Amino acid sequence: MKLNHVIESQQFTVPLLMELFERTRQMEKMVARGGTKDYSSKIMATLFYKSSTRTRFSFEAAMFRLGGRVISTEHAADFSSEMRDEILEDTIRIISNDCDVIVLRHTEEGAARRAAAVSSVPVINAGDGSGGQHPTQALLDLYTIYRECKALNGIAVAFVGALDNGRTVRSLTYLLSKFDRVKFYFIAPPEMQIGDDILHYLDNHRVQYELLQQPEGIISAVDVVYRTRIDRDRLAKKDVDLGIYNINAAVLQKMKSNAIIMHPLPRSVEIDPVVDTDPRAVYFRQARNGLFVRMALLTILFDQE
Amino acid sequence: MKLNHVIESQQFTVPLLMELFERTRQMEKMVARGGTKDYSSKIMATLFYKSSTRTRFSFEAAMFRLGGRVISTEHAADFSSEMRDEILEDTIRIISNDCDVIVLRHTEEGAARRAAAVSSVPVINAGDGSGGQHPTQALLDLYTIYRECKALNGIAVAFVGALDNGRTVRSLTYLLSKFDRVKFYFIAPPEMQIGDDILHYLDNHRVQYELLQQPEGIISAVDVVYRTRIDRDRLAKKDVDLGIYNINAAVLQKMKSNAIIMHPLPRSVEIDPVVDTDPRAVYFRQARNGLFVRMALLTILFDQE
Amino acid sequence: MKLNHVIESQQFTVPLLMELFERTRQMEKMVARGGTKDYSSKIMATLFYKSSTRTRFSFEAAMFRLGGRVISTEHAADFSSEMRDEILEDTIRIISNDCDVIVLRHTEEGAARRAAAVSSVPVINAGDGSGGQHPTQALLDLYTIYRECKALNGIAVAFVGALDNGRTVRSLTYLLSKFDRVKFYFIAPPEMQIGDDILHYLDNHRVQYELLQQPEGIISAVDVVYRTRIDRDRLAKKDVDLGIYNINAAVLQKMKSNAIIMHPLPRSVEIDPVVDTDPRAVYFRQARNGLFVRMALLTILFDQE
Repeated sequence: MKLNHVIESQQFTVPLLMELFERTRQMEKMVARGGTKDYSSKIMATLFYKSSTRTRFSFEAAMFRLGGRVISTEHAADFSSEMRDEILEDTIRIISNDCDVIVLRHTEEGAARRAAAVSSVPVINAGDGSGGQHPTQALLDLYTIYRECKALNGIAVAFVGALDNGRTVRSLTYLLSKFDRVKFYFIAPPEMQIGDDILHYLDNHRVQYELLQQPEGIISAVDVVYRTRIDRDRLAKKDVDLGIYNINAAVLQKMKSNAIIMHPLPRSVEIDPVVDTDPRAVYFRQARNGLFVRMALLTILFDQE
Repeated sequence: MKLNHVIESQQFTVPLLMELFERTRQMEKMVARGGTKDYSSKIMATLFYKSSTRTRFSFEAAMFRLGGRVISTEHAADFSSEMRDEILEDTIRIISNDCDVIVLRHTEEGAARRAAAVSSVPVINAGDGSGGQHPTQALLDLYTIYRECKALNGIAVAFVGALDNGRTVRSLTYLLSKFDRVKFYFIAPPEMQIGDDILHYLDNHRVQYELLQQPEGIISAVDVVYRTRIDRDRLAKKDVDLGIYNINAAVLQKMKSNAIIMHPLPRSVEIDPVVDTDPRAVYFRQARNGLFVRMALLTILFDQE
Repeated sequence: MKLNHVIESQQFTVPLLMELFERTRQMEKMVARGGTKDYSSKIMATLFYKSSTRTRFSFEAAMFRLGGRVISTEHAADFSSEMRDEILEDTIRIISNDCDVIVLRHTEEGAARRAAAVSSVPVINAGDGSGGQHPTQALLDLYTIYRECKALNGIAVAFVGALDNGRTVRSLTYLLSKFDRVKFYFIAPPEMQIGDDILHYLDNHRVQYELLQQPEGIISAVDVVYRTRIDRDRLAKKDVDLGIYNINAAVLQKMKSNAIIMHPLPRSVEIDPVVDTDPRAVYFRQARNGLFVRMALLTILFDQE
């Protein structure tokens, strides 16, 4: 069960996920104790063709908590003409000389796979194109459900927001489909509904789902409400009431007492700040889990070398 | 005397300043010996919404000399759409998961205080808005006077330059007012004179001051000449002779033999390079003190956790 | 044979080059073993006024493999108004307080020399202006020839591409001229031929060279083909066939069996990807050597302090 590169969530088997989550739990405990690991000889290169400060910080902090080093670029494409015009494969061949793992964010779908094909060190996909994947986000999302709901089999999840171009939702859907008796509710304005490729995948894997235009009626039945942003500018009819998708005190009243509210953050108006103090609001813990999951993933990559 | 966050210079009491300066002196000696401290498990996040390479380098070098790690962003606002649109409080909640101290430079006055209110780790204000504060600059300025003049009580200081929008002058004025028998001369073109809020503060604390339009006559009486830049574009009358504010060989002749010349740097034409070699020109030592003061401040924050 | 700063390739004597290459070989072996050096108290500042991610990564990885720390800026000039307007000498005076070595890339020729004149720590020139130098590139190029060809005396080198504004070719030419019986072929469109200052230098040092417009006939006689990019936009006549300068399967057939193909990378169309798998294509090994040469150079600077 060797893990060479981390390109897409589909590649994770249930046993590998369980190993990852066991290590994640250990990392969480170690950080709480103020401990560090000794990967001091390891160097991570964060190669971001598109800036994402929070994702980059999370990877870099994970590497530091393991005792390692980081070489970092925040917007490779914007400023370095050599990086912009360069054949991606050549860049990876060269930079893989300088480090032990490459964390790549790119604007083009498939870039991470191309990089992995020529890299002499593991490549981790930190997002490739808006229709691509962001597997470590999906892993931390899955871990959050596992930690908070104590289960993955039998989970009912409502995805609410712009679902058509969300890497987050796509990657998490693939991962959750590996578990038994999960049910998905995809709740979005029609023009932002989840893509046919995902539905096709779910059909093939006999995963139950429903497509809905509004959350009314279903919100009280789910274990997880996963909210993503909606960009109003993308709507054809500008007078659609997006407020029906928002999470606020009224929605909290309808939700199960042990359900959880997730969000990949940053949030805008879609979650009312009054929700923050409700114990079911787990989005800040979810973000925090990113550190532990990324630490655990790095140890798996380093330990098997 | 717990120090949770470093937001503004007013929060420093005289005993805390003396503890800081004692530690600063120790750091200076330790660096001279080539020694380092062992804060290797600590991570600093430098979160700069506005780039300031020198300030960032000084904080990061301070962290490294203490044995720690740094995650760094140079212009959070310009490049990361998620950072730009994000609620500052959410960003801080998330990033404080990844680190042990946040160094924040922001464009909005009050941003550091807002960040501190939600952060799970100490926040250090590295400048918030042009009318805001930059307390570590004030601390290193104060330390420089203390080191060079061997005293803070009874000190006479001439502030010369654009004083209305200078964070540096504002923050240092607050700090110096905590000592006895200090006297300030604010010397600037009328449209760039120090703000009424500062004068009100000085009146309330019974600190002596004079407002002047030119340094003639007073320069021979002061212990410290603190020069800041004047942006000619901000003057209503473009034909004002700014040369009268410059420090040059003639000014050196008039100054006391044990007075000092300070500048927050970078300087432009306002200090003639011939001044650099005069023993009273302390601005490069002043910049160097930034490293030691920041190291000392970090140890205070870390040691009390 | 003290090395204070690394400004231009001319300053390296043959004995110093041999010491550097001996250390480079040791670094290569140490990295292969997964070892690190203990320069943990040393801080490098990478001060790039013009972004060059690959060069910066190579320097930073070299520092990390030695156990050191790095403070880093990717585009000092673009974003930091204080850096942009600041007198370079003042910036260096201040930043040299924060670190043990400065790696400087600047847009102006001569900037590295100016920086070295005021720095309290060693300055390494990582490129100053398009007509300036990039000595560590030249050192890694020279080391690559030494490693691959087992000799430097008697070497015949064809430089092919835009030779007029190439720092790389200029710096390497100076270095190779220190060895006996080398011969250069400068092969380029007339408007991009190597500069008269270089030819004058070669004449003075009695180094043999030929100027050619196309590689036909000579390619089978050389030990090294050093290809650089040609920017078509710079050609007066847009219909010139640049294909004659490209390295492809046909060129490989004509080359000596023990000759090597070098390129400073990134490459564009000028080297066909089919060449990559030929054992004579050393450009990826050449890039890798940059790590080891920079590690070795840093140890020389640090060890003599």
